[in-house]
Amino acid sequence: MPELLPRARASQESIFARMSRLAVQHGAVNLGQGFPSDAPPAFLLDAARGAVGRLDQYAPPAGLPVLREALGADLGVDGADVVVTSGATEALNVLALTLYGPGDEVLTLEPVFDVYVPQARLAGATPVMVPMRLDARGWGLDLPALRAAVTPRTRALLLNTPHNPTGAVFSRAELEEVVALARQHDLWIVSDEVYDELYFGDRPVALRTLAPERTFTVGSAGKRLEATGWRVGWIACPPGTGLAGNVAGIRQQGSFCAPTPLQAAVAAALPVARRDGFYAGLRQEYAGRMALLAGGLEALGATVYRPGGTYFLTAQLGPAAPDAGTLVERGGVATIPLEAFYPTHGAPQGMVRLAFCKSRGEIEQALDRLAAALVPA
Amino acid sequence: MPELLPRARASQESIFARMSRLAVQHGAVNLGQGFPSDAPPAFLLDAARGAVGRLDQYAPPAGLPVLREALGADLGVDGADVVVTSGATEALNVLALTLYGPGDEVLTLEPVFDVYVPQARLAGATPVMVPMRLDARGWGLDLPALRAAVTPRTRALLLNTPHNPTGAVFSRAELEEVVALARQHDLWIVSDEVYDELYFGDRPVALRTLAPERTFTVGSAGKRLEATGWRVGWIACPPGTGLAGNVAGIRQQGSFCAPTPLQAAVAAALPVARRDGFYAGLRQEYAGRMALLAGGLEALGATVYRPGGTYFLTAQLGPAAPDAGTLVERGGVATIPLEAFYPTHGAPQGMVRLAFCKSRGEIEQALDRLAAALVPA
Ligand SMILES: Cc1ncc(COP(=O)(O)O)c(C=O)c1O
Ligand SMILES: Cc1ncc(COP(=O)(O)O)c(C=O)c1O
Repeated sequence: MPELLPRARASQESIFARMSRLAVQHGAVNLGQGFPSDAPPAFLLDAARGAVGRLDQYAPPAGLPVLREALGADLGVDGADVVVTSGATEALNVLALTLYGPGDEVLTLEPVFDVYVPQARLAGATPVMVPMRLDARGWGLDLPALRAAVTPRTRALLLNTPHNPTGAVFSRAELEEVVALARQHDLWIVSDEVYDELYFGDRPVALRTLAPERTFTVGSAGKRLEATGWRVGWIACPPGTGLAGNVAGIRQQGSFCAPTPLQAAVAAALPVARRDGFYAGLRQEYAGRMALLAGGLEALGATVYRPGGTYFLTAQLGPAAPDAGTLVERGGVATIPLEAFYPTHGAPQGMVRLAFCKSRGEIEQALDRLAAALVPA
Repeated sequence: MPELLPRARASQESIFARMSRLAVQHGAVNLGQGFPSDAPPAFLLDAARGAVGRLDQYAPPAGLPVLREALGADLGVDGADVVVTSGATEALNVLALTLYGPGDEVLTLEPVFDVYVPQARLAGATPVMVPMRLDARGWGLDLPALRAAVTPRTRALLLNTPHNPTGAVFSRAELEEVVALARQHDLWIVSDEVYDELYFGDRPVALRTLAPERTFTVGSAGKRLEATGWRVGWIACPPGTGLAGNVAGIRQQGSFCAPTPLQAAVAAALPVARRDGFYAGLRQEYAGRMALLAGGLEALGATVYRPGGTYFLTAQLGPAAPDAGTLVERGGVATIPLEAFYPTHGAPQGMVRLAFCKSRGEIEQALDRLAAALVPA
């Protein structure tokens, strides 16, 4: 047989898929991969049941007009500037292919959401990672390091706020510095805001409001509406530029269009979620579960970095903690080791990411198992 | 703003999306894009309504185990060798990224299904197109031309049977020659068989049965089950090679996984479709509509090439026929001009592709409008 390409030989199961598989295999509580234990809201499910049998054929690659309109209204942009994708993962891939190419560098943060790296490489570009700072104030942007990393080849900044895995929500002041940097060097900004409605303090600042001319916003119905398997994501392009046409052109070569009946359901659900305070309810519920997990971990002696957003927290479980592989196989709890988010720099020692989008019962069970696993042998 | 990459500047609406948009805009009967007018079967819809609210979170990138099993049983392969994708479009893209890279050539046929070309280029490879022959016997493989096009850089053959847009079904003898060529030069075979159940004569031969060691089979639930908007496709990899792991690794960077509840519905529907003779019923129904369209066109003086499979036929509408753009805007019928499938060689003069997966009423209305449009002015 012909040899496989290096990129195909190197491709492997992601840490998220792997931990979920091991969790099933070993009967572990899955605080690893970021998907909720609760069902999506009934208003979303009902809309999907109604759309199936009515809207089953190809949608335009840019998305069903009704969904582009609904997203425009929700995000405060024009629906014509919105492109619907098969989840935010595809949105990020499409933007990489649209914006960065051979010889280009794209600046992003470390810890990094895993797909940013292979996607940039596939586009022909070089991902350059700037470590976040971690100190007494918690996780934050290292602005001097970000500035120092810009070169004449830098083409784009790829940011994520609220930030996975750290839970950091970047402040307006920080983001204004980022925008100044982007303007100074004429860089695109790709802002991954899939957790835009999941925050516990101030509402996160959307980068497009600070730099509309150069910001592409990425979002995910899966994260917003607790349906990560539905694969409906989106890109809001700089307004009035016509760039949505180029983005949609690239997008149709990937998976042609996002699932039509689920697009229709999301279109119906977005205004309802907003009107009925669904996101506020979600935040309140998750704030409680976060406190349960963080408090429980602290009681076990762990150092917890409480997040400003997302449904993850990072924690150092302590010197007696087994590594994440042993923990899922023998301790009965799946977590994500922070090393998985550090492809180039060293990760903070002994740190893991834990998801609290799981039921209270699961969180309590995980804490019980951790109590046993963290006892020095 | 930074300049856009050439590939993004060049990206444009596909001819299928464009014709569907123009059809809506001008109230034309849409015999252009290949999606059916009928609803998907009730057993599929019911399964989806049942899966929504139960299976809403991420699936493994390779697919829900139950769907991989069902596909394995349906295709006569091991489920472990199957990878589920967001439609066949994504399956083809994933295979391009897995199998061809910079410096490689991939041989395919012209007329060509449009995405093959940008997908090969994105993978870094050069698509090399070999025109099909068209003569008194209809459309067929030009085997001498295919042989002559192989170079030391050729890495893969990308074939499609039953073939869109011509409707040709390649014979076992032809495919045996193809396999001999692939073995002689050690080439991968990518066999796009999305119309595997849509044929009007002999059952198409699946290339994987002739060359299991090197053939990747691409399929589509959208085409099989009349739900083109659902975005569930698949790849069956050479058995026992472990290549499904590499393919799934590449696949997760594109859209992570296919829509989970729709995967579950397809898994439930596949054995029912087989057991209840759904495909045989579909073939019978479409054979009737094909005869209606072909006969009607012939009565208008068109030259029709009757297909052995797919739900398309090609036809020369005659010297008085307006071009496809004029026909959709003023004649009230959307078709696809065959030039759209010929990026490198010249297309046969005045030929269009017409879809007959539309209702009898639509086909009759299109024939009425064509009767008016084909009258010399
Ligand atoms: C920061 C970030 N971006 C993108 C995604 C992918 O979202 P989707 O499931 O819509 O593809 C995730 C999923 O965890 C994420 O955490
Ligand atoms: C030959 C061929 N391959 C692939 C596809 C794409 O199929 P899907 O809708 O599953 O992406 C089509 C759709 O028309 C096709 O005709």
